[in-house]
Amino acid sequence: MKKIAIVISGCGFKDGAEITETVSTLIALTETGAQYQVFAPDLTVETTNHLTDATEGTHSILAESARIARGDVKKLTSLKANDFDGIIFPGGYGAAKHLCNFATEGSNCKPLPEAQSVIEDFHKADKPIGAFCIAPALIASVLGPQGVTLTIGDDVETAREIEKMGAVHATCAVDNFVTDREFKVITTPAYMYDKATPFQVFTGIRRAVRELIEMA
Amino acid sequence: MKKIAIVISGCGFKDGAEITETVSTLIALTETGAQYQVFAPDLTVETTNHLTDATEGTHSILAESARIARGDVKKLTSLKANDFDGIIFPGGYGAAKHLCNFATEGSNCKPLPEAQSVIEDFHKADKPIGAFCIAPALIASVLGPQGVTLTIGDDVETAREIEKMGAVHATCAVDNFVTDREFKVITTPAYMYDKATPFQVFTGIRRAVRELIEMA
Repeated sequence: MKKIAIVISGCGFKDGAEITETVSTLIALTETGAQYQVFAPDLTVETTNHLTDATEGTHSILAESARIARGDVKKLTSLKANDFDGIIFPGGYGAAKHLCNFATEGSNCKPLPEAQSVIEDFHKADKPIGAFCIAPALIASVLGPQGVTLTIGDDVETAREIEKMGAVHATCAVDNFVTDREFKVITTPAYMYDKATPFQVFTGIRRAVRELIEMA
Repeated sequence: MKKIAIVISGCGFKDGAEITETVSTLIALTETGAQYQVFAPDLTVETTNHLTDATEGTHSILAESARIARGDVKKLTSLKANDFDGIIFPGGYGAAKHLCNFATEGSNCKPLPEAQSVIEDFHKADKPIGAFCIAPALIASVLGPQGVTLTIGDDVETAREIEKMGAVHATCAVDNFVTDREFKVITTPAYMYDKATPFQVFTGIRRAVRELIEMA
């Protein structure tokens, strides 16, 4: 039975993990019979009110991630590539604000050290890495200089920033995915198409997850 | 095109809507081509830390519901049965704590007035009503005295409390659903089976949603 690590950074697309993308990942993984464990960084960050967009106090990423994971979330620093057959990063601004700082720094962004370590470890172990929505920017911040191919959909400006990091960008529809067979990196745009329906997002993620499980 | 109202009460199963159940509902609805609008009560309630179970301050149900609904959530008081072809209540403790007080009062529970109104209005309009997980307890608090049939899975104690309200309980597996054709009430147990996988929960909800759309 395949065992996959899921890395998120909160609960809600404006300050954490995109919820539909994360749940779609869990549904698709368990459809294949795979097991999973959710991980998140142990950080306290600013909270964004998803109704008003106001910044309101702070929250624990670990505690908020537990909302999606039904209480079962572990610290990202405890994640070992040896224990899993693959890893997936769903999207949401959290991936671009907390797992790296692409949201503010663009192509000059730096990955969170523990995110960088796990990406490097899965890559060295030749295990597949999935990244959805804006999370491919995090992958580019680590594997871009080696020339990984990935997609964030068809947004020209975001694609340009990702290519500045050395990555190759491939345009992709919401219900499709892109595989870099050499790097074993699988990406799908999801809510980079912000008018997409939940079913379209689920379809792209389901196909990406099935590809990842086949490669695991 | 069918238009369905979704009523939730937060974002997280311990103090609001069960996230996988809500997202499964949205995926299944948009798979059929249906449109939806998310509604939530405009209340401020205690927050439960989903990692530690501690009570930590308060939150706006409307703002937290906006996390799942990607910002697009309306007040439950603005929901009119005339504008929709059906209504769905996903589960999570929010349905038993905020939309009614079944969590503390059992069979003596009372529905939130605006939740009672919309259930009565959809029922009078002969439009289908879906309720998942523990949300059937809310339906029983309104339509129980008239003898509605529904399921909360196979939990004997919860079923007994629901039957005390006049409802008829039918045992049901996680990937199946129960239809009361007279009342047009469709229910599925979802995470009442707390060891269920996300795919099992999605499967039961997907089937219940397809039934509801056929009846709408």
